[in-house]
Amino acid sequence: MQKRKVKVGIVGLGRLGYQHAENLSFRIPFCELTAVCSINEKEVKKAQENLEVPYGYTDYDEMLTNKELDAIFIASPSGFHCEQIIKALREGFHVFSEKPLGLYIEETQKVEKVVMEHPDQTFMLGFMRRYDRSYALAKKKIEEGAIGQPTLIRCYGIDPTKQLDGFIKFATKNYSGGLFLDMSIHDFDLARWYLSAEAKEVWAVGGSYSRTEFNELNDAETGAAMIRFDNQAIGIFVAGRNCAHGYHVETEIIGTKGTLRIGTVPESDQIVLFNDNGVINECFDGFISRFEQAYLSEVEEFVNCIIEGRQPAVSVRDGVESTKIGYACKESFENGQLVHVQNDRFVSN
Amino acid sequence: MQKRKVKVGIVGLGRLGYQHAENLSFRIPFCELTAVCSINEKEVKKAQENLEVPYGYTDYDEMLTNKELDAIFIASPSGFHCEQIIKALREGFHVFSEKPLGLYIEETQKVEKVVMEHPDQTFMLGFMRRYDRSYALAKKKIEEGAIGQPTLIRCYGIDPTKQLDGFIKFATKNYSGGLFLDMSIHDFDLARWYLSAEAKEVWAVGGSYSRTEFNELNDAETGAAMIRFDNQAIGIFVAGRNCAHGYHVETEIIGTKGTLRIGTVPESDQIVLFNDNGVINECFDGFISRFEQAYLSEVEEFVNCIIEGRQPAVSVRDGVESTKIGYACKESFENGQLVHVQNDRFVSN
Amino acid sequence: MQKRKVKVGIVGLGRLGYQHAENLSFRIPFCELTAVCSINEKEVKKAQENLEVPYGYTDYDEMLTNKELDAIFIASPSGFHCEQIIKALREGFHVFSEKPLGLYIEETQKVEKVVMEHPDQTFMLGFMRRYDRSYALAKKKIEEGAIGQPTLIRCYGIDPTKQLDGFIKFATKNYSGGLFLDMSIHDFDLARWYLSAEAKEVWAVGGSYSRTEFNELNDAETGAAMIRFDNQAIGIFVAGRNCAHGYHVETEIIGTKGTLRIGTVPESDQIVLFNDNGVINECFDGFISRFEQAYLSEVEEFVNCIIEGRQPAVSVRDGVESTKIGYACKESFENGQLVHVQNDRFVSN
Amino acid sequence: MQKRKVKVGIVGLGRLGYQHAENLSFRIPFCELTAVCSINEKEVKKAQENLEVPYGYTDYDEMLTNKELDAIFIASPSGFHCEQIIKALREGFHVFSEKPLGLYIEETQKVEKVVMEHPDQTFMLGFMRRYDRSYALAKKKIEEGAIGQPTLIRCYGIDPTKQLDGFIKFATKNYSGGLFLDMSIHDFDLARWYLSAEAKEVWAVGGSYSRTEFNELNDAETGAAMIRFDNQAIGIFVAGRNCAHGYHVETEIIGTKGTLRIGTVPESDQIVLFNDNGVINECFDGFISRFEQAYLSEVEEFVNCIIEGRQPAVSVRDGVESTKIGYACKESFENGQLVHVQNDRFVSN
Repeated sequence: MQKRKVKVGIVGLGRLGYQHAENLSFRIPFCELTAVCSINEKEVKKAQENLEVPYGYTDYDEMLTNKELDAIFIASPSGFHCEQIIKALREGFHVFSEKPLGLYIEETQKVEKVVMEHPDQTFMLGFMRRYDRSYALAKKKIEEGAIGQPTLIRCYGIDPTKQLDGFIKFATKNYSGGLFLDMSIHDFDLARWYLSAEAKEVWAVGGSYSRTEFNELNDAETGAAMIRFDNQAIGIFVAGRNCAHGYHVETEIIGTKGTLRIGTVPESDQIVLFNDNGVINECFDGFISRFEQAYLSEVEEFVNCIIEGRQPAVSVRDGVESTKIGYACKESFENGQLVHVQNDRFVSN
Repeated sequence: MQKRKVKVGIVGLGRLGYQHAENLSFRIPFCELTAVCSINEKEVKKAQENLEVPYGYTDYDEMLTNKELDAIFIASPSGFHCEQIIKALREGFHVFSEKPLGLYIEETQKVEKVVMEHPDQTFMLGFMRRYDRSYALAKKKIEEGAIGQPTLIRCYGIDPTKQLDGFIKFATKNYSGGLFLDMSIHDFDLARWYLSAEAKEVWAVGGSYSRTEFNELNDAETGAAMIRFDNQAIGIFVAGRNCAHGYHVETEIIGTKGTLRIGTVPESDQIVLFNDNGVINECFDGFISRFEQAYLSEVEEFVNCIIEGRQPAVSVRDGVESTKIGYACKESFENGQLVHVQNDRFVSN
Repeated sequence: MQKRKVKVGIVGLGRLGYQHAENLSFRIPFCELTAVCSINEKEVKKAQENLEVPYGYTDYDEMLTNKELDAIFIASPSGFHCEQIIKALREGFHVFSEKPLGLYIEETQKVEKVVMEHPDQTFMLGFMRRYDRSYALAKKKIEEGAIGQPTLIRCYGIDPTKQLDGFIKFATKNYSGGLFLDMSIHDFDLARWYLSAEAKEVWAVGGSYSRTEFNELNDAETGAAMIRFDNQAIGIFVAGRNCAHGYHVETEIIGTKGTLRIGTVPESDQIVLFNDNGVINECFDGFISRFEQAYLSEVEEFVNCIIEGRQPAVSVRDGVESTKIGYACKESFENGQLVHVQNDRFVSN
Repeated sequence: MQKRKVKVGIVGLGRLGYQHAENLSFRIPFCELTAVCSINEKEVKKAQENLEVPYGYTDYDEMLTNKELDAIFIASPSGFHCEQIIKALREGFHVFSEKPLGLYIEETQKVEKVVMEHPDQTFMLGFMRRYDRSYALAKKKIEEGAIGQPTLIRCYGIDPTKQLDGFIKFATKNYSGGLFLDMSIHDFDLARWYLSAEAKEVWAVGGSYSRTEFNELNDAETGAAMIRFDNQAIGIFVAGRNCAHGYHVETEIIGTKGTLRIGTVPESDQIVLFNDNGVINECFDGFISRFEQAYLSEVEEFVNCIIEGRQPAVSVRDGVESTKIGYACKESFENGQLVHVQNDRFVSN
């Protein structure tokens, strides 16, 4: 008895989007990239040719009329996620959306409602770190009691200096959400996941250190947030856009019986170079190389969920809650005060 | 214009063979696993079902009559490689063979001759380490002069203690080639590659330390070989079957201006655990997890070579020369003397 | 021309005090341990015998009448520091005091006044970390611009789990100052030193995780404080009493052009052990082993200051300011609010 | 009851000699540096002044007539060791000699005989590594069974490139003993110590890679020796004079149940620097900084041996045997053949 292949249409063919398209085409078992969509026609053509994709669209709504497709994969700019998720769900597709769920709390809550109205369709949010082998193994170790009760989590998410100019250019024209929403959203999800707790109170600080443009943007080049969770656990979050040595994603969970660190030195390979500068490890240059395996594994899980008719462990709620924490940090950073995080457990209609 | 998919038939469905089959099915662009072959009918059925492979064979010669196939992928036991390569080449197929090329120098030279008689067919030997990102990057760095002239290479290849019992059971019934041919063959290839030199003289020692069975097998549990290369460079090779912490493959190249180490601590992930034992990194448990990426990349290269009508960088000669070094080590270990390596640069008919 | 030896009398012969006494006797050039003082007569006798010290006292005031002495070295319990410093200064001695300067802001300000009234006597506070080679080198690198402008400092100070029982016993009978004053005082000094800035605002959190006694003590087992400095730099401080792997003192300074980490893995030696648990580094078991060299170097500097008639880089002000930060953390931890640190730059009479 | 101080006279005030003199003066309990001797009068004066030493000599024999002295400390050039040891022992002094015991096997055997004729005088050879905390702890762990039975030892001893010019200048005028005797003598001692075995057979290779002067000196810039020990254990020794990253002393002992590595990355401090080159550890620049603690501890042990009337664990025999291994390596390197090490267990008169 042969498994049917899941046919996927992707929207968004930027750097990460194209990477996903390539994976969907070549590296995900029982999956077929059947359609690509982008407002940029050249991107559509290039993807169709290189990846041998039968259907190409420049209009998202048109792609949704293609009933050969089983699932829609959303890798478009963040501002489009909520609307595109809702439309695809309502057209009966399974949906995968890149993070963030949305840029505003209200729209994420609206998505949550729609997801709940379509329980038979798989919905997955791209919190790929949970599918990174090291992060997944850390979760397993915590559940097995390797570090006792988690009491403190420290998360670093700092983008490489090389992308600093590009970000400033982008942020002067677009709403990025600000440092914490944009950079720490994965970390907020990890903290909730590892601590099994919800955020209560937050204080966030930050500043412009090498580039004054951040002041004008009312944003921070480097920032930190400290969070008190509802089980007394402590969260420390450092976010930034100016990491000289590369892409620095590091997570530490201190427990009553031990500590776990993931990516404490973000070595990109198994090489150590000894020369007259000392002993040198080179680092990852960005999220695509660091999370290459996770980007594959999450999509494998998405496809398996569809085939097996189930939902993934990452739920729409995780997206809503992370967004709330991000907004609390943003508010605290802007007004300098301690901020209480709103934790309504149920969506209000 | 659409690329045609390369259709591959695999022989050998053991642990590594099945892994290759899975990769050929799902993870290699422009490739289709079209046939599987094993003398074990259950393995054939299982692979056909799980991987949706149209053709299944228990007879290798029969698979070679299937003219839908473009390429034969050989992952059978080492003793069959030479014969199967020669047959497949003569039937007009492109051929990929797992290492080693063969178990005896003479048969490898025979293969070399046949490969040379079929220059239009891609032939590739599974020296996958060259396609591991860290090893490949090390080569690039050496070529760029990062460590000056390489003067000494040190290679460790030690299998986990967990496999010790299994190996002893295997070796009492089968010809493994002995420690150096079986465990160091990749290292000999790496040494030749990084040093751009050929081995001249070798002294190999070793012994039985925890398990006396090795004495009876005239083999070593742990051994070391020192090699003088024709450009005065030095090679140090440690091989073993009793590594408590896992699978230890480590390579160091010392040059006149710096040193490169690859895999010096064989950490299996980005996790560090701090507990009352200290600060702990866990290690790879075997070659399949350590070289997962390399096993994919080498096959991608094989398929690309076929599509583009070219030969890969790893040649049949690399297989022949590595085998010679392995035999020189074996001889030295057995007779206790310094042994000269035979380096006929050309195949004698 | 021969240098005269500096004759020192020490008060306090506990674990660290005895270590200092041994150093003063045997390992500090141009220094002689001439008197020892403790309320415990046995300790006095033992030190006199083992270290060949001519004078022994059980009364501090009596020791101060010994005019052979040049300097008084205070290693008594924290509650005595201020009074003993003031007395010794007024009797004309050079004074070295172990940290903390005092347990209350007011008494530290009083000491500061007296120190300023005796400018010709060397006064030194035992912030030994500044004399640890790694910490000192980090300062030098920062001054040389190795990491650009420091923007964030993260300091961990966590005592080993092995000392947890002992601490709880101690703290139920004595005023320890609480987690932040007791454990983070060195870190506050380091932060001020590396950032060249003063603390403005602090939020501190913490809790009882494995031992409920901390709740009863109105103290925390593990805590964290985030501080905004007057130059916009960020401080993150983690303190604790339950570190499974040993004594964890770690400092990180993130700058606009690079990052420095000191003691990120607190390895106690140059040994790595590979066994079936993985690859293991053992850690320091306490401050005396971690800071052995610093405890010597600070005293060498103290003696050299006396000989050369100068003051050390660590001033009484550093003690006062660190205490203020500690109290701000304590207040914030207790009331849950953001707290402003009082930074009167001048001592009010 | 007061311990008498051991009065020491030192000969040799070069870089290491002066460091020893400083230690003997200031940092060794129950020890007094009472006399200094050097053919260089300026060195004698400088040491007397800085270290407040009462007696100064330019003639070694004259120093031996000073009967205030208890012990002679030999830090003169290697060629003088044997003669000076013998003279001092015959004059009734306890003797400490820097390594090597001597430059020729015969003279070391003569010293051994004289040492044995004076069993009541403490004799110690400066194999300081055994007193390095990491090396000592490794020995303890091995004895406790942490790695099972040691089967292979790998030792690296490579001097910094910065000293390369200086060495070549020295070696063109002086007999250094050659690469293996000069650089690996400590490693041979460590191998015998950790393996509890004697060397049987050796093959040594090496060459001139960056500097042709080594060919003219009949010496090697970088070399390697492989040794078979009498219990089947394997020794691998790499020695060199061209280490770009600093002073690289590394030791690995592989056992049947685990592996120990000491100094695998020769980090000079607890600092890690992250910048646009990657993540960087700086390394030791030479033996004095790497073995600072060991140089102190061995002399403490020497003084304690004198006070307690006993002999240290490092015996004259260790010096003789290490020299033999060094000569076997030298011979093998020069003639290209396997060489048997002569292991007469008893000194022939």
